[in-house]
Amino acid sequence: MRIGFLGPRGTFSQEALNKYIGRNTYEVVAFSTIPEMLFAVKNNDVDEAVVPIENSIEGGVGVTLDMMAFEVDLLIKAELAIQIRQNLLAKKGTRTEDIKCILSHPQAIGQCRKFINSRLPHAEVRFVYSTADAAQEIAASGRNDYGAIGSIAAAEEYKLDVLASSIQDRDNNLTRFVVISKEDSSRTGSDKTSIVFSTEDKPGSLYRILDIFSLWDINLTRIESRPEKNELGRYIFFVDFVGHRDDEDVRDALAMVKRKTSFYKFLGSYPKWKVD
Amino acid sequence: MRIGFLGPRGTFSQEALNKYIGRNTYEVVAFSTIPEMLFAVKNNDVDEAVVPIENSIEGGVGVTLDMMAFEVDLLIKAELAIQIRQNLLAKKGTRTEDIKCILSHPQAIGQCRKFINSRLPHAEVRFVYSTADAAQEIAASGRNDYGAIGSIAAAEEYKLDVLASSIQDRDNNLTRFVVISKEDSSRTGSDKTSIVFSTEDKPGSLYRILDIFSLWDINLTRIESRPEKNELGRYIFFVDFVGHRDDEDVRDALAMVKRKTSFYKFLGSYPKWKVD
Repeated sequence: MRIGFLGPRGTFSQEALNKYIGRNTYEVVAFSTIPEMLFAVKNNDVDEAVVPIENSIEGGVGVTLDMMAFEVDLLIKAELAIQIRQNLLAKKGTRTEDIKCILSHPQAIGQCRKFINSRLPHAEVRFVYSTADAAQEIAASGRNDYGAIGSIAAAEEYKLDVLASSIQDRDNNLTRFVVISKEDSSRTGSDKTSIVFSTEDKPGSLYRILDIFSLWDINLTRIESRPEKNELGRYIFFVDFVGHRDDEDVRDALAMVKRKTSFYKFLGSYPKWKVD
Repeated sequence: MRIGFLGPRGTFSQEALNKYIGRNTYEVVAFSTIPEMLFAVKNNDVDEAVVPIENSIEGGVGVTLDMMAFEVDLLIKAELAIQIRQNLLAKKGTRTEDIKCILSHPQAIGQCRKFINSRLPHAEVRFVYSTADAAQEIAASGRNDYGAIGSIAAAEEYKLDVLASSIQDRDNNLTRFVVISKEDSSRTGSDKTSIVFSTEDKPGSLYRILDIFSLWDINLTRIESRPEKNELGRYIFFVDFVGHRDDEDVRDALAMVKRKTSFYKFLGSYPKWKVD
């Protein structure tokens, strides 16, 4: 079994990967972008990939959603969520007040806006590909007026000091990951299903689709709109709901949704994640 | 009249600003972040601000939506949309094949993924705050193995060559901007209204809100979910629809929406933008 994650080592994606594989002996492969990783599943270079899909503060991960809708025909076989705790990392000997430049991924910067504004208001902010890249760059630069925002795992990996821990604006910062494969999961009795669709360009058409779920008493857990990309004002909708494709009600509801939408794609049924 | 836009000069925000003010003689003020700009409206440092809210390819601008929902009590008084055309810019004498590093805003990089993958697959990508910053940085660096992705306005402002023009993956790339102020606009007969709300944590509650609009024959033009930020799986919904707060049906519908939601905020009525 080969499984992909968003590298380098020390990202939250690796934390999610570790949680998913547990004690299994999988071969793990680091990818530098989400599209590369999903194309690798498509081309059988890896069997599965762990990808971030949603953060409780910053929202949906656009590139994952767009890839699943438009670029690959793959399925979600599992979901899991991890707590994101951000930390201010720097070379040994750096003091917080010395920091002139902060490096991190745009989403991590977004998660720590209040900390940056109050503690480092004059520092320049530079975006890099991942929180681990930020840590790696600072370790390599040897500079002690640079800070990175990232995980404790990154501090350990790149031998950096933790100047301030758990600096995210809000404590309830979770990222939901999904495991992408060519097959989804069979029924466990506590399952979720994901689909994506676009409605006809008529008033009330989204309402009519949600009406179908309401008719069959199916509980939606998430609805997220993304641009359809052809025209401003046209959207596709990602919907997650409780149930499995093998449940009779789900099967009937999905058959109806499929008939009533101009674009429809089934994205998989998988066991519902239980928050620890 | 003082009006804010997202600087520096040469951004698409300035293009939108120019379109909005036309021949009026406003004093224009460049801000470096959307939060600073919206707090400036709140504190009467400027009268209005032109902010990006949605792009037809990349989707909603999270920071604008979150600021409007959670941080300021301001209203939308106008909307406008501009075509985004991205270009590869570099110092005079640079050839495309020389470029080792591409600088731009993450959204601009996202809009040109296919061009980068096919023409500059080995170039390193570095994120900066704005497309204009990228152009400015290259002009200042004097390096001729760097490229920026940005507007023609930025090429002119920073005296760069345009190595490739209109390099965005999709031609239908529009950004919608809104003009934020302390007051919205009075009825013109061709208006839109924006609200944001969260529903009770019960199955079918979003459906029941959309049902209200359906009952009053109000046409939704957009629905976008964003995390509520307190808990993974809880969302707020931004809804735009046709009509003005002074229309009788809209008034009745909004009164009902307000009663049926756990969080509700009116974001303004404003003239509908007519695409040129």
